[in-house]
Amino acid sequence: MAALLVNPLTAEAFAPFGQVIERAPGGRRIVINDGSCVRHHDLARPQASVPGAISLSLFEAAATPLPAQLRLLERHRQGSQAFAPFGAALRMLLVVADAALAPGAITPGHLRAFVTDGQQGVQLHCGVWHHPLLSLQAGTWLVADRVADEADCDVVPIAGWQLHCAA
Amino acid sequence: MAALLVNPLTAEAFAPFGQVIERAPGGRRIVINDGSCVRHHDLARPQASVPGAISLSLFEAAATPLPAQLRLLERHRQGSQAFAPFGAALRMLLVVADAALAPGAITPGHLRAFVTDGQQGVQLHCGVWHHPLLSLQAGTWLVADRVADEADCDVVPIAGWQLHCAA
Repeated sequence: MAALLVNPLTAEAFAPFGQVIERAPGGRRIVINDGSCVRHHDLARPQASVPGAISLSLFEAAATPLPAQLRLLERHRQGSQAFAPFGAALRMLLVVADAALAPGAITPGHLRAFVTDGQQGVQLHCGVWHHPLLSLQAGTWLVADRVADEADCDVVPIAGWQLHCAA
Repeated sequence: MAALLVNPLTAEAFAPFGQVIERAPGGRRIVINDGSCVRHHDLARPQASVPGAISLSLFEAAATPLPAQLRLLERHRQGSQAFAPFGAALRMLLVVADAALAPGAITPGHLRAFVTDGQQGVQLHCGVWHHPLLSLQAGTWLVADRVADEADCDVVPIAGWQLHCAA
């Protein structure tokens, strides 16, 4: 059984796949609202092939049993997809692969796995291969992604691959 | 001193001003991810006068001292603005007025005030008058709004108005 090592999520390591939504020391900070608020500005811009089709939804997720058994990868080529912990500190496992890979070409060596720290969100670039949501706690994620009448989801099964989470 | 009564936030009462982002029983639910997740679908669509200018930011807010002293209302006519509790249960006070009101025409009678329950976000329609973020706890809010080089913020002072929060 192929095993993947999980690394803590950092903006640098995740850059090929998307943005990390977090209060990062190095980001652009703007003091607003008469000094009562710091705006960590412009962390990720949702993208969609059709203007105006970005929407906010809530994903109410069960906790993922560990060790996580991977099932499949999917990609959405017409839009980005962002996840943020909603109303609670929540951690997620991320399993991703480069958007340029053809479905049949993906091997365990192409996969990267990350775990968030409970106060991080992410935005996946358009087309990045990713496992469906693996929330480490039962809870709700805010999702910003494209909505449309037609489906936009390529799927590749990766059954039999397991995630080893040291965190 | 003018006083405003604060009501619990409901989608129905808030409809003239925007959407409530919550796991509402009446909303559209889609079971996804092999049954491990319920998608509360398409709760709010960010709007911007310039396509592609919607961005995700984090607002790191201080707790609002109570009773809340209102300072000003603002409106952003070129885009919607959504707020969601990020990584923690957070409540906010909302003070809003109809987008169609001219700045000089706003009186205390035009204002509506709401309080969220800790597991609710909101999206303000383009141009809705609103007080700057009044977070009841120190914490972080995810914000989805328009980013641009030019400012898009009308402001009206409402100093001397006070909020009475029964919740």
